Amino acid sequence: MTRRQLHLNAFLMSTGHHEASWRLPESDPYASVDLDHFRELARIAERGTFDSLFLADGPVLFSNVGQRPAGVLEPLTLLTALAVATEHIGLIATASTSYNSPYNLARRFASLDHISGGRAGWNIVTTAGAEAARNFGLDDEPAHATRYERAAEFLDVALKLWDSWEDDLVVADKAQGVWGDERKIHPPRHRGTYFSVEGALNVPRSPQGYPLLVQAGSSQDGKHFAARYAEAVFTAQQTLGDAQAFYADLKTRAREAGRDPGHLKILPGIVPVIGSTEAEARAHEQVLEDHIVHEHSLHRLEHLLNLEAGTLELDARLPADLPPESDIEGARSRYTLVVELARRERLTVRELIGRLGGGRGHLTFTGTPEQVADAIENWFTLGAADGFNIMPAVLPSGLGLFVDHVVPILRARGLFRTEYGPRGTLRDRYGLPRPANQHTTAPTLTRV
Amino acid sequence: MTRRQLHLNAFLMSTGHHEASWRLPESDPYASVDLDHFRELARIAERGTFDSLFLADGPVLFSNVGQRPAGVLEPLTLLTALAVATEHIGLIATASTSYNSPYNLARRFASLDHISGGRAGWNIVTTAGAEAARNFGLDDEPAHATRYERAAEFLDVALKLWDSWEDDLVVADKAQGVWGDERKIHPPRHRGTYFSVEGALNVPRSPQGYPLLVQAGSSQDGKHFAARYAEAVFTAQQTLGDAQAFYADLKTRAREAGRDPGHLKILPGIVPVIGSTEAEARAHEQVLEDHIVHEHSLHRLEHLLNLEAGTLELDARLPADLPPESDIEGARSRYTLVVELARRERLTVRELIGRLGGGRGHLTFTGTPEQVADAIENWFTLGAADGFNIMPAVLPSGLGLFVDHVVPILRARGLFRTEYGPRGTLRDRYGLPRPANQHTTAPTLTRV
Repeated sequence: MTRRQLHLNAFLMSTGHHEASWRLPESDPYASVDLDHFRELARIAERGTFDSLFLADGPVLFSNVGQRPAGVLEPLTLLTALAVATEHIGLIATASTSYNSPYNLARRFASLDHISGGRAGWNIVTTAGAEAARNFGLDDEPAHATRYERAAEFLDVALKLWDSWEDDLVVADKAQGVWGDERKIHPPRHRGTYFSVEGALNVPRSPQGYPLLVQAGSSQDGKHFAARYAEAVFTAQQTLGDAQAFYADLKTRAREAGRDPGHLKILPGIVPVIGSTEAEARAHEQVLEDHIVHEHSLHRLEHLLNLEAGTLELDARLPADLPPESDIEGARSRYTLVVELARRERLTVRELIGRLGGGRGHLTFTGTPEQVADAIENWFTLGAADGFNIMPAVLPSGLGLFVDHVVPILRARGLFRTEYGPRGTLRDRYGLPRPANQHTTAPTLTRV
Repeated sequence: MTRRQLHLNAFLMSTGHHEASWRLPESDPYASVDLDHFRELARIAERGTFDSLFLADGPVLFSNVGQRPAGVLEPLTLLTALAVATEHIGLIATASTSYNSPYNLARRFASLDHISGGRAGWNIVTTAGAEAARNFGLDDEPAHATRYERAAEFLDVALKLWDSWEDDLVVADKAQGVWGDERKIHPPRHRGTYFSVEGALNVPRSPQGYPLLVQAGSSQDGKHFAARYAEAVFTAQQTLGDAQAFYADLKTRAREAGRDPGHLKILPGIVPVIGSTEAEARAHEQVLEDHIVHEHSLHRLEHLLNLEAGTLELDARLPADLPPESDIEGARSRYTLVVELARRERLTVRELIGRLGGGRGHLTFTGTPEQVADAIENWFTLGAADGFNIMPAVLPSGLGLFVDHVVPILRARGLFRTEYGPRGTLRDRYGLPRPANQHTTAPTLTRV
């Protein structure tokens, strides 16, 4: 019998997930807009038979350009280019439900799904922050609950659009001059709170029906949304216990929402820092930490915690009187994770910044390939994960080390595929069924 | 001395510009969503050293799926895929100023410009029609003038966003941990009638600064807009005289707007129907016309002319009492062109439909390669065109015929490049300067 198989996603970034990675001698400071850099990353991940690539996003200039590399390529655009440069790997792009129109975004994902032969995924985000809101005509960010309400309606409309063509609409009768069956077009005629969308999509239903739906918010609103819509969830968890609790909670919620919990895959993010000995790995981690500019990180931490600039002191702990999560309208689950990490481990601000530098709240696994594989296997077998979102501290080198040294161990243990096999869709990789069209009464066509 | 060089753009479409092209035995009825089909078209055009590829667009399902192929891939997405599959050719995508946000669209074009090494172009449209409006929360299309007002403000914001990074912002000082010069970021802080956009773009200034700006409306509003912003104009002209008048008018308007008229290239659309003899070409044209379903075309013509269904009769002329152009809120210049064509040539509705079937109002050049090349040279040398928007009736075969039989004649006459030469941007191909950044006081860097 085959062992349960784990799933691996490569979370791409310019020079790596560690905020100081760009300062290493090996790093190209222009990597963020260099197609060849991302093409190399995609090829390494495909060599490692990863399930998918992923790009985070927000429609805003996140960083101060003085402090670190700050421009990026728009993810759907970059992943479309990578679709042509790869053959098997899934392509998961982040896009915001708060700052897009359903008609435009549904078209773009359907187009990428056609172009890639069914390899498109959408990481659905609601986009925290007033800065983003102010790029779209608003004065401040919408309330957390409002963003999630809009997201739910956005999804309903997008699903109506993706299902507005039945799969077998095209008849292509050249002799009679009949191209398609008009009865198989279903315009949404949607009139809701946030959107009115009348007509059918102008893209035929795509290989996967619609993109794999991915989500990454871990707030109460986020988990509720994930249980209803998400087929894969990226999450930041700092301890095995927390990860197990999150995993059990989300699977239960999916079941309660009437879904098969096996159809919701949970992938905690991990930052692997790999050395041929543990000491070498720790030394590499230390080099990265030594390159952090604490003053800059301090400002970003104050921003995340909703504090005035100058409130925090590097060698003191966090203030005791931080507001509860429910008062935060921004990135709510990230807020809680950071505050709990600092309190649980009694970290000073300087120590907290060191811990966050690698993966912005994701767990760092530092050690030999064997040790990293052990940690992955542990979490996977102990009910904390269906797979992992791999976030190398330094790119491309860290992804290369993982693929060439950790992946072979996972394969030898029978936990991970050794080859892609025949061409398949992104859902095929994750062992998920192709979604039926809501207008089709025929039984679901499940691809194997 | 080198002769003045003409420019050629390939207007891509699924099975061709003739509405009946999909019914030919050679045509693939699924071509519209097939990347390989478009990859082949791009390669043919690049073999013909064309300046650029172009895709039209509207965020709406245009056709009745019963009548002809109706789904398409979103143009920026498709052209991004083609950027990776080509090396030299420009990539011009249509996108609407009425149904996009400047921040999102500016990002996407800047991203494509980076990915393609400076080959991105934007065909700016305001999108006529209530059907599109109803996909974006509106009950009806905004008035013609309103759409153009919004388009002008959209352009102003987009230009501010593309110029929000100075070209030489990145210093990449790894030792000091300074990535960029903060003084070289210029957030738009735009507060206007249609848009408020606060922050800088999150994409560094791209190889071309911003995409080549293309425009295709020929109404009064359209020409006013083109004179102010466009670097290339696609236009539908039915006679040499009309084309000359349009050419002279637009160049004069550009001069009056304080611009170098040489920096606004005018490309009429032509539908070449090529045969080894004139009779063969005419026979091919007749085959296409015989495949038109007149009943369907009648409905589309009534829609364009803003008439009730059932108003027109196939074997009668257009009614005498059609409203003036200024009463039309939709596709105003196309309306006028069609009405004038029918009246000038005293066409019946059936004849008009035959004339429109090939290029929806663009002029058809039917004949031998020699005759088509003569027509092109005539228009080019007699002040009617800087180049042409080539719209083959059938694809890919019609593009292949043009590239293999007409292009060699144009080259032999010294009118068109024989090779691309070194890699260059889309503006380099059209002989246009790279735009200076509005925040940079240094002299414009003009690429040759």
